[in-house]
Amino acid sequence: MKKVRIALIQMNICREVEENIRTAARMIRQAAAQADIVVLPEMFCCLYTNSAFRAAKEPKGGRIWSALQKAAAENHVWLIGGSMPEEENGRIYNTCFIFDREGRQIARHRKVHLFDIAIEGGQHFRESDTFTPGNSYTVFDTEFGKMGVEICFDIRFQELARITALAGAQVIFIPAAFNMTTGPAHWELHFRGRAVDNQVFMCGCAPARDENGPYVSYANSIIVSPWGEVTGRLDESAGILYQELDLALADRIRAQLPIMQNRRTDLYEVQWKQK
Amino acid sequence: MKKVRIALIQMNICREVEENIRTAARMIRQAAAQADIVVLPEMFCCLYTNSAFRAAKEPKGGRIWSALQKAAAENHVWLIGGSMPEEENGRIYNTCFIFDREGRQIARHRKVHLFDIAIEGGQHFRESDTFTPGNSYTVFDTEFGKMGVEICFDIRFQELARITALAGAQVIFIPAAFNMTTGPAHWELHFRGRAVDNQVFMCGCAPARDENGPYVSYANSIIVSPWGEVTGRLDESAGILYQELDLALADRIRAQLPIMQNRRTDLYEVQWKQK
Repeated sequence: MKKVRIALIQMNICREVEENIRTAARMIRQAAAQADIVVLPEMFCCLYTNSAFRAAKEPKGGRIWSALQKAAAENHVWLIGGSMPEEENGRIYNTCFIFDREGRQIARHRKVHLFDIAIEGGQHFRESDTFTPGNSYTVFDTEFGKMGVEICFDIRFQELARITALAGAQVIFIPAAFNMTTGPAHWELHFRGRAVDNQVFMCGCAPARDENGPYVSYANSIIVSPWGEVTGRLDESAGILYQELDLALADRIRAQLPIMQNRRTDLYEVQWKQK
Repeated sequence: MKKVRIALIQMNICREVEENIRTAARMIRQAAAQADIVVLPEMFCCLYTNSAFRAAKEPKGGRIWSALQKAAAENHVWLIGGSMPEEENGRIYNTCFIFDREGRQIARHRKVHLFDIAIEGGQHFRESDTFTPGNSYTVFDTEFGKMGVEICFDIRFQELARITALAGAQVIFIPAAFNMTTGPAHWELHFRGRAVDNQVFMCGCAPARDENGPYVSYANSIIVSPWGEVTGRLDESAGILYQELDLALADRIRAQLPIMQNRRTDLYEVQWKQK
């Protein structure tokens, strides 16, 4: 099957975890009526602060995970569950759980590159105060072919998208929350750049913007074609971005502009070191 | 020295090799009055067709190379000599020769990725009908620090800029000639993308546009900061783009947004395989 219907949920996120879970469940039900794969934003369940991450942390199988599992199964839809603070063995990860149409968890991406920045006159944040980074790239099989997932700051490191695309991902989904410093500067650039470099579709799903929140999301959830065209984009408000992707487009572009096949792998290669 | 004055020569290129050499020499003299490093466009010496490449081919030390050597020495300027069809041992390369202020050839970049594309309803070209590809990345020392060079289609392969930046290049110069299909789609995107990914300055130097030529250059010679801002850009006409680059800016950006230092080299690395 070469056409896949995507829905990116750009939701409002508030202080109350339970309310965020209810919002997500309601919007997943709405989106699933018109989509094969539904995506939530990064940290859809809590505010974007280190204290909120610690307060909302839960293990796999907890109430947040279970709500996602149930939403996937009840709506018979693929669910890329944004991200949540996942606790395991006393460590906390920024984790995306991925569920198939039966509600089975079939993949998990733990953010590999933590968001530690200190822009003069702009955004400061240190995720590494709370999180332990993941050590894997993430590709999973669907009836549409292979799909990849990264989380937010991961997109800034070109090697991860390259490795994900070389592993066969046709679409790379990125739950993310850029801010009002980095969003206007680099959000679209990174999605377009990774799309053209790897000749894949790129989908970014962000929280809606709350100007009064502790961390102001740039929002602008986005879909980019393998030619680098922005084919769908939201503004700052809550909403759902729907789009049908013609996966055969990537094959046609790769034939016309042979980037992926003309890489000089006799001269260089990106190696993934298994951990 | 942390400030370096750049001049990108966006010159008209005609059918006559001798006239192109004279144009280049005149514009180098003009540019050198206000610049430390002067850059010519890709194939500054001949039209952009396979037959013109073959007709203009010359070895190192020939009249084209000698004119560049002389221009660098006479004007006491660093010269990144665009590119020319270099013949050696019966093979032809798309080669950039680089000269110091004394006119000594101190580096040479042979295009690593040949331009073979066939866009439906757009540009077709097969450089590999004429050229043999190079097998090296190119970084050289100046009194301003290390500089890197790629040629045109090389920019589409993210590994080369990464390796060049990891080798210490603070500015990557790219003599190039995108066309009216790929230019509007990807020219600015690639220069901005490589700049932000690698936190380096990117400079693209193209031929001026000749709508009646056999290959229509997109022109738009460009300079991008390590933050991804387009700080200088020409239109389609012949001209010289001057800019002083504050190389310390890259250090400041790398400190605020730690991309280059927070790469997960415990998980992945781009390896260059020596040939």
